Parts: sequence; structure tokens; C-alpha cells
Amino acid sequence: MVNAEILSIGTELLLGQIANTNAQYLSEELAQLGINCCWHTVVGDNCDRIKQCLRAALNRADLVITTGGLGPTADDLTTDCIGNFFAVPLVFDEATIEKIQAVFAGRGMIMPESNRKQALRPEGSQILSNPYGTAPGIIWEVSPKLIEKACLEYKDKARWIMTFPGVPSEMKAMWQGGARPFLLDKFVEGTIWSCELKHYGIGESALADMYSDLLQSHNPTVAPLAGLGECRLRVTAKAGTVGQAQQLAWPIIEQIRTKSGSMCYGSDTDTLESVVGKMLAERRLTVALAESCTGGLVSKRLTDIPGSSRYVKLNVVSYSNEAKHKLLGVEQAILEDKGSVSLECAYGMALGIKTLAQADIGVGITGIAGPDGGSQDKLVGLVYVALVADCFQTDKTLRFSPQLSRAEIRHRTASEALNMVRLFCLDNTQLAK
Amino acid sequence: MVNAEILSIGTELLLGQIANTNAQYLSEELAQLGINCCWHTVVGDNCDRIKQCLRAALNRADLVITTGGLGPTADDLTTDCIGNFFAVPLVFDEATIEKIQAVFAGRGMIMPESNRKQALRPEGSQILSNPYGTAPGIIWEVSPKLIEKACLEYKDKARWIMTFPGVPSEMKAMWQGGARPFLLDKFVEGTIWSCELKHYGIGESALADMYSDLLQSHNPTVAPLAGLGECRLRVTAKAGTVGQAQQLAWPIIEQIRTKSGSMCYGSDTDTLESVVGKMLAERRLTVALAESCTGGLVSKRLTDIPGSSRYVKLNVVSYSNEAKHKLLGVEQAILEDKGSVSLECAYGMALGIKTLAQADIGVGITGIAGPDGGSQDKLVGLVYVALVADCFQTDKTLRFSPQLSRAEIRHRTASEALNMVRLFCLDNTQLAK
Repeated sequence: MVNAEILSIGTELLLGQIANTNAQYLSEELAQLGINCCWHTVVGDNCDRIKQCLRAALNRADLVITTGGLGPTADDLTTDCIGNFFAVPLVFDEATIEKIQAVFAGRGMIMPESNRKQALRPEGSQILSNPYGTAPGIIWEVSPKLIEKACLEYKDKARWIMTFPGVPSEMKAMWQGGARPFLLDKFVEGTIWSCELKHYGIGESALADMYSDLLQSHNPTVAPLAGLGECRLRVTAKAGTVGQAQQLAWPIIEQIRTKSGSMCYGSDTDTLESVVGKMLAERRLTVALAESCTGGLVSKRLTDIPGSSRYVKLNVVSYSNEAKHKLLGVEQAILEDKGSVSLECAYGMALGIKTLAQADIGVGITGIAGPDGGSQDKLVGLVYVALVADCFQTDKTLRFSPQLSRAEIRHRTASEALNMVRLFCLDNTQLAK
Repeated sequence: MVNAEILSIGTELLLGQIANTNAQYLSEELAQLGINCCWHTVVGDNCDRIKQCLRAALNRADLVITTGGLGPTADDLTTDCIGNFFAVPLVFDEATIEKIQAVFAGRGMIMPESNRKQALRPEGSQILSNPYGTAPGIIWEVSPKLIEKACLEYKDKARWIMTFPGVPSEMKAMWQGGARPFLLDKFVEGTIWSCELKHYGIGESALADMYSDLLQSHNPTVAPLAGLGECRLRVTAKAGTVGQAQQLAWPIIEQIRTKSGSMCYGSDTDTLESVVGKMLAERRLTVALAESCTGGLVSKRLTDIPGSSRYVKLNVVSYSNEAKHKLLGVEQAILEDKGSVSLECAYGMALGIKTLAQADIGVGITGIAGPDGGSQDKLVGLVYVALVADCFQTDKTLRFSPQLSRAEIRHRTASEALNMVRLFCLDNTQLAK
């Protein structure tokens, strides 16, 4: 079993200017490979401290992954410190120099002298190439002789060092393109394949209870994950080939999809808005929104998806009663008797926007997102959502805890509205081409 | 000079399920107090490893701040490990037990036996109380006798340990309410006061160049910070009292506000949308948006602000040409000859929504957010924003690099539109009450 440590190098992390999202990404990836990540360390751009942290990491872990400190400036110390720690000379990697020069030439510039240091690597290490930037990393199996010379503990164990730049997009590309395949090949018997099944309308603990048997299984493993009012089940299988791993995982995935039914809305990179968009496009349906308390958030999320102009034509944010009445045709009597935060008003808005936009589906949302605006009979967190289509209508009354923030109430309301459109599409599969 | 280390405890961090935002928050706070944070360490819920990390931290830092591991369950090990490390008995804090019992009683429940352990603290430590949850932390000056007994290096130096739960809201409340005042009192001569001046319309390096002289100054210090297309200057002053620190900082703040002029839009918790909202409310102006490529994002940001119903009455997301023409009255000739992505269309939308909503200011936004939809003469990233008011109109043509993501193009367009409304309000100060 391989133990890993992530050593992040950069004073900006210690000043709190950025969060260590690189460590999170790499940890999640390591976990998926079945490699234990037992420590994260963050240290500043200081050679003595970096070397002390390297010693601690190499003493307790088999695989040390560094991020940061690979740039061309004087405070980029990672490669230097690693070479210095093992008292190994740094050598110029000619292919890398040429690549860096080509990057600059492509921008019509001559490579500054300072960038030459980015082509240095400790003698004996391999270059981990960087498709997006000038700074490559290294992959290095440190020789037993060097381990002994550096006075590390556990002299008979192999040690691996991988270095990555701190820029997340470059780090991720190098991980996916070079480091992950290397680790898969080196430390993982066969390969690993995983799939996340995204759920809406059930909490993490209820989901864990529902699948308590599967959570005990070994290959594939099933793990629950939560976040932002949604949850996921990750199914991970190990096998000789990707195809074999998928064959192992498939029956479990099918079992979950069947049991979860409409609560499972998609997988992996799917989002509620992307799934709704795909369903609307397949069914050649258009949707139109009349938003009050969400103030455009549902429209924003729907149009986050490229190509959403196929199913979004016109949405309205009708904050005022006047807009609700004049533009959407919500009756004055409803606004006066029931108030703008009422189920009747939500229906009026849904019908009004459906007519105005000549859409197949109209959605009306009205409520109190807070922190002010609540009253004794209409508390902050009370929201009505209505959906109107030809020959069909449905609604939902939401009562969020007033302890939730305005942003959370709005986000969860938007998810609920998107989910109502999704469920409507699910019930109308015959419309899909 | 005090050196600090942040030791975050929790296997969920090592699995990559969450990012270590607590370490970022605490680091930024420590930097503001002038306390050096030299290391972050993350370790899982494992007693041996926690104790090893504690030893390393206590050997190199004066102040060790832990987060996580204070809950009632078996894998919450922090207090246990600290007591065990120093071979000090844990004692029940009676006041804490009573508080926890009261929290449960308030929910109509009896405190489970497992929560009793949350009232334990190492003998000699003080409780750091938690206003939002059941788990308090501790503040502990470890005695020289214990430091010697634990065989730490640098036996003559004092060591401080502070523990916090992992839940960010609880950690922050305990930091602001207990730990920060304690550290201010203990380690900072006098007090520290700081103010961030938020800028729009200038990049970080241009801002740093503009204030290169001030960036060298010592008390107050001035530091540039960047993020999401905006940047900030943080002015930090140290003095005997808050009043004296403010007196030191004030001339510099005034100097920056004067020199930056309209580029400095606010301070501290201000956002473009909150500042625009305040200005509109003060001037009793209403704004109405007709959004195409931003799809509701500007409306969403404006209505993120509580009370925005005072100045937002009606916004429209007019994705289709039909909506632009029929609802907003953009001329067919413009849509056919110039196209929907044109300055003329942006003006037509602005004027149309202003009329429809009977608002004081109308804003029209149309462009190509990508990744598809671009053409040879209209590239992805081309956006037009028009603002129309009574007797005034202005516009802006934006040409974002097509390498920016759809989300970035939309976010920056929204910021630009909000800033145009802000500048209009600035030019119309006579309207403010």
C-alpha cells in the first residue's frame, strides 16, 4: 500500500490569499486510485523550510507530490531545493528548453534568460510535461543510494517525487496527461474506473441508509458524497482493463439507477441545468420563467449551458406587483387578496409568462428570500413555485428554515424549479425525438 | 516575532471531499495581526499521526492552531491527543457541560452521553467558547514543565495551543469572539485596524505601479490583492487603540480614494452590486435590464442584495430575436441588417426595457458568450452594453479574449454593466437625497 503526501509550496497560501484547492483535487484523485494520502503540508518560499518539509515527507510517505515553486522567478525554489536536498546536480533538459523557446516564439518573443531554469531537472529524474505552460514538472524514482546518502529513515523503501506548478489548470492537465497514467501503471493493479450518480430530492444520510448494503461492497466500492443541497454516489471499480472495470460497475450502476428512479438525475459532469437543457432540446420544448424572489438566478443557471438559446426565448424578473399584473396578467384581486407571495400568484406568473413567451412550459416563482420581508403568517423562506404546460400544471410550496442565508434560499429554490421542469420532461418522454 | 502553524485534523480533507478553507481564513487573519504563519499541516483522524504532527508543529512554531476533531463521535480525537501528548489529565468543564445541556434542552432533547466528551479540556487550559455549536475549543499556554516533559526542542520558549471545530461558521465566530482578541492582547503591541479599498477598471499590476511608493510604507502598510477581474488595496495600521490606528490609516485611505477617483468603488464588504444598489436607492432611481448573453446574471447579482425591490421592478432576459422585437420593440431592420449582436440592438433593448418597466435607467446587453455562436466578423467574446436614461445615453463595446470561459465572459460583462450604472449614478449626485 502506497502512502502519499502533498507538499504545497508558496507563501501566498500561508498568507491566505488563495485556498489550497490543488491539494483537494490531488487528494480526490489519489483516493480514486486507491493511494492513501495521509498528509498535506504547506510551506512558504524558503529553502531551509522546504528542505525540512521534504525530509519529513520523505520519511513518512512513499510518494511526495509537490505543487508550486516551478516558475522562472527567484522565489521559485522547488527544483533547486529537491536537487540540493539529495546533493544531486541539476541538468538542463534540452527538449524542454526547445519547447519553452517555441512557446515564446509563438508569441513573437525571445525567451528571457530567467526561463532557462524551468528546464532544469535533478539528474536521473524524468520530465513531466506541461501542455499549457512553460513550467514542466518531474517524476523521479529516487535511487536507494541517494536515499541512504540523504539519511532518510526506512532506507530499503523506494521513494517517488512528482512536482507540479501551482496554476490549477496546468497541474490538472499534467496530472491527467502524465502523472495519473504513470501511477496507474506503477501502483495500481490493472485500472480504475469510476462514475458518479447525481441525485436530487434526497439527503446524504437518507441516501446512505437506502444503500447501506452497497456501501459495504469492495469491488466496485460505493461512496456517498454531498454538497449544495444535492448528493452523489460514486461507484468505483478496479479491473485489468477499463472495459472489465466498467463491466464490474455496470450492474451496480443499473441497480442504483433503478432503485433511485427519478431521484437520480444524471452522472459525472451533469448538472440539473444541463440535464434539463438536454431534455428540453430533445423534446423540442421551450421554457419561460417568471421569477420574483430568485431575481434571475434560474434564468442565469439555465443559460449557463451553451446552446440554451434553443429552449430559452424569453424570461422575466417581475419584482414589482405592477410588472406581475401589467406584463404577466396576474389578476389585481390575487395580488390584493392573496398577496404577491401566494400559490395563486405563482400560477398567475407561470401562465402569464407562458403566454407572453409563447412557450411550452411556464414557471412562476415567488417567495421571501429574506433576510427582511417576512411577516407572521408568511415567514422568510416561504416560496411558491408553479409550473404550467398545455393540459398540465403542478406546484410546490417550499418552507426553508429562516436560518438559511438569502443566497442558500435562492439557490435551493432555483434547484427545485429546475427539478420540476426535469420531472415534467421525464413524464413526457413520448415528446423526445 | 511569533511563528504559527495551522494543523487541520480530518480525514475528509485528505480524501479531497472539502477544501481547507479554514486554513485560508486563519492565515489571512494571522497575517493581518502580523503573526507569521509558516506552515499548514493536514492530518487524518488517527491518534499516532496527530501526535506526530503536534510534535513537529510544537517544535517549529510558538502558536499551534488546530481545526477539526472536536465533535462527539469516536473519530473526534483532537482534545484526547493533545492531553495524551503532554500526559496531562482531561478535566470536565462544568460550565461547558451546562451550556451543551442547555443547547439540547432548547431543542427539547436530552444531551446524549457522547456529547459529554466535548466538555473535556486538558488540565490548565481555558475554554474558548463556541456561540454557534456544542463543541468549544481551548486556549492553552503550555507550562515549561510540560514542554520539558514532552521532550520538545527549544524548552525555554512558551507554546500556545488553540483548538477550533472544523465547521467554518463556528470556527470564525470563535476566532472573532475569543481567539483574535486574545492574540491581539497577548502578541500585538496595541491594536491593528485595516481597510480594503475596492477597485474596478484597473488591473493588479497597474494598481501596484500606481501606488508603488505606498507599497513600501510601514505603518500603515498597503498591499494589493486581486481576484475575479477586480482588485483591492488593503491599508493596515498598528497603534495603541483602534482610534489611533484609524487616524494613522485615514490620510492614506483619503490619498488613495482621491488618486483612484471613480476606480475606487467602495471598501471592505462592498460589492459592485451593493454599491450600485445603495446609489440607486439614495437617488430614488430604478433600473431595468434587458439581458441577452448574460441570461439573467446581472439581474441575479442586483437582486442578491436584500432590499433590491426598491430599485428593481422588472427585468427581461430576451434571448430570442422575437422577444427583442415584440416585447422590447427593437426594430426588425436592426435585427436583420445589424444583427442581434450589435450596438444598435443593445440600444434598442435598453430603450425598450426602460419604456416597458417605466424605469429611470434601461440597460441592454447583447453579445456572444461562447463557446459557440461566433463568426468571422463577430468573434466569441464580443459584447455590447448600452445604458439609456432620460437625456443621457452611453455604451461600451467589450472584446474578451475567446480563451476566456463562457462563465468568465458572462461574469465580466455583468461587472461592466453594473459599473456603467455606478458611473451614471456618480455623475448624477445631485439626485441623491
